[in-house]
Amino acid sequence: MKLAIIGAGAVGSTVARLADSYGHSVVALADSKSSVIDPSGIDVSNSLEEKSTTGSFSGSNVEEAITADYECLIDTTPTTLDDVDTSFGYITTALERDRHVVLSNKGPVAQRYRELKEHEARSEGEVRFESTVGGSLPVISTIQDVGPQRVTRVRGVFNRLANFILSRMAKENLGYEHVLAEAQELGIAEVDPTFDVEGTDSGLTCAILANVLSPPDKEFTIDDVNIEGITQIPGSALKLGKEDGKTVRLIGEVGTDQIEVTPQLVSQNSPLAVTGAQTVVGLDIQNAGPLNVLSSTTTNKEIATTILTDVNRISRSK
Amino acid sequence: MKLAIIGAGAVGSTVARLADSYGHSVVALADSKSSVIDPSGIDVSNSLEEKSTTGSFSGSNVEEAITADYECLIDTTPTTLDDVDTSFGYITTALERDRHVVLSNKGPVAQRYRELKEHEARSEGEVRFESTVGGSLPVISTIQDVGPQRVTRVRGVFNRLANFILSRMAKENLGYEHVLAEAQELGIAEVDPTFDVEGTDSGLTCAILANVLSPPDKEFTIDDVNIEGITQIPGSALKLGKEDGKTVRLIGEVGTDQIEVTPQLVSQNSPLAVTGAQTVVGLDIQNAGPLNVLSSTTTNKEIATTILTDVNRISRSK
Repeated sequence: MKLAIIGAGAVGSTVARLADSYGHSVVALADSKSSVIDPSGIDVSNSLEEKSTTGSFSGSNVEEAITADYECLIDTTPTTLDDVDTSFGYITTALERDRHVVLSNKGPVAQRYRELKEHEARSEGEVRFESTVGGSLPVISTIQDVGPQRVTRVRGVFNRLANFILSRMAKENLGYEHVLAEAQELGIAEVDPTFDVEGTDSGLTCAILANVLSPPDKEFTIDDVNIEGITQIPGSALKLGKEDGKTVRLIGEVGTDQIEVTPQLVSQNSPLAVTGAQTVVGLDIQNAGPLNVLSSTTTNKEIATTILTDVNRISRSK
Repeated sequence: MKLAIIGAGAVGSTVARLADSYGHSVVALADSKSSVIDPSGIDVSNSLEEKSTTGSFSGSNVEEAITADYECLIDTTPTTLDDVDTSFGYITTALERDRHVVLSNKGPVAQRYRELKEHEARSEGEVRFESTVGGSLPVISTIQDVGPQRVTRVRGVFNRLANFILSRMAKENLGYEHVLAEAQELGIAEVDPTFDVEGTDSGLTCAILANVLSPPDKEFTIDDVNIEGITQIPGSALKLGKEDGKTVRLIGEVGTDQIEVTPQLVSQNSPLAVTGAQTVVGLDIQNAGPLNVLSSTTTNKEIATTILTDVNRISRSK
C-alpha cells in the first residue's frame, strides 16, 4: 500500500524505515511543520537524514501530506490532552477521501470515539489503532475477534514507566524520586513524566477500551475514568506489601460498573505483577473462565511493527 | 451461521450449547456413530440429554452430518496419531462443498497441512484452527496478522499436564509418579497420559507452527520434530535447578534451524516459567525486539469459545 506517515519522531521514522520490507511504499512523510512528498515513493533514508541535518523536511507542509495520493494514513503524532483536534482533523480528512487510517495517537480514539466511528461508517476507509492499547499486545484485535459484547472486563498494567518505578521501588527499597531520576537517565522517562506517573496515559487507554467494549450509543472520555497516580505512594507501603507476598501495581480496569486507574495491591504471583518496563493485559471473556493474559515489553520499534501489522490487517480484509 | 458439529465430547457439546448465544444455529451434531440433523436447527439440550441417556443420538450416522446443509463444519474429534484420515476426510468433504471449517483436532493440520491448504485454495470455504496451538491463546491469528515470514521463532509451554507435573514436582519436592496420580485425581490427566507426558501433543503443536511459519513448498509432520518427554526427569534435577534460581519446563520450540520439544532449564523469572496447568507462548517478531508473551489457563470451555471466535473471524472476513 501507499503510505502517508504523519509524525517523524522515533515511531514515525521507524515505520517509514520498515515500510519497504512490508511491501509498502512511503509517498508522504511529515512532521508538524514540513513534509516530503513523492507519488512514486520517497527516499526514506535521505529524507530522514535531511531532517536530522537541517531540522525539517525539504518542502511543503503537513496539509500537503494529508491530501497526497496515499492509500493509508498513519498518524504517529504524540498524544496530548490539549490538542486532540489536530490529529482528529488529519484522520477525518483521510476518511472523507476514502483512505484507511492507522493511528498510535491515543487522543482521537479516547476523546472523540463516536464521531470517529461515524466518519468511518461513511467512508470506504477503515480505522485501526492496536498500538494505542498495551503497545504491541494484540488486545484490540483479540477483542474484535472474540466480539466486544463477550468481553466482561479488561484489567492491566498499561504504563511501562509507572511499572518500572513501582517494581524498582519495591525491589530495591528506594524512594519515588530516586527511581524516577534513574528512569530518566535510562531514557524510559520523559523530562516531564507527569503524563505517565499521574495515570493520564493509562486513563486514556481505559477510555479507549471502554469505547471499544460498549454499545454504539455510549461514549467515554478520560473524564469518565477515576484516576489516581503513583506519585504519592510511600516506599514504606511497598515494603509492607512485600512482607505480605504482595506488591503495588498501577492497574487500569474497565468493567461493567467502573473505569479506573489506581495503584492496587496484587499478589506477587499474579499475572499482573510484571516487573520493569513491561505491560500486561488480562481479558475476562464470557464463558471462557479466567483471564487470558498477554504481556510484553514495548519499545518504539515494537510500536512501529504494531502499526505495520494494522496495515496488514487492512490489506488482508480488502 | 449454520453449524455442523462433529464430536460430542466436552468441547463439541460446549460449542453446541454456546452457539445460540453467538448468533449461530446448530443444524447437525454427531459423535463417531450417530447424529442428529435438523435444517431449521436442532434442540441442543434435548439432543445432548438423549445421548447421555441412551448413549447415542437419535438417528442416522456421522456421514449424514458431514453432507448436511451447514455453512461451517466444526471438527472437535479427539486428536490421535493413528487416525488422521477420518478427520481429514470430514474436512475435505466440507471444503469440496465450499463450506468453511474450524477444527480443534490437531491431526490434519500437523500431519497433512499442505494437502489441506490445497483443498482450501480450491474451495470457497476457509479453514481455521486457532485452538490447536496454545488452546485459547490468540497465536495463529497473531501470526497471520503479523505475517508468518516475520515471525522468526515461536517458543512455548504448550502442554498443561506436563507443566502441572513439572511445576508441582519442583515446588513440593515430589516424584513424577506421585504427581501424575494427583493430576489424574484432579481430572487434568487422562487415564493414559502418554500423549501429554511423552511430548507427542506438544510435538504436534510444533509441527502445526512449523507448517504455518514456512513457505508453501515446505511441509512438516511430527516426524520432523525432535521430541523428548518428561517421564525420565528425576526429582533431584528439579531440586538442583531450584537452588540455582532455575526450573525445568517442557518447551516446544520452532525456529529457523530446529523444531523440538525438550525439557529445558529456564530461569524462575522467565515468562516461560508458568506454574500449574497453564500454557504460554512467546513469539519473536522481526524488528520487534524481544518476545511477546501470551499465557492462559485452558479448559474445555475456553477451547469451545476459541472455536466460536474462529467462526467469528470467518463471518467477519466474508
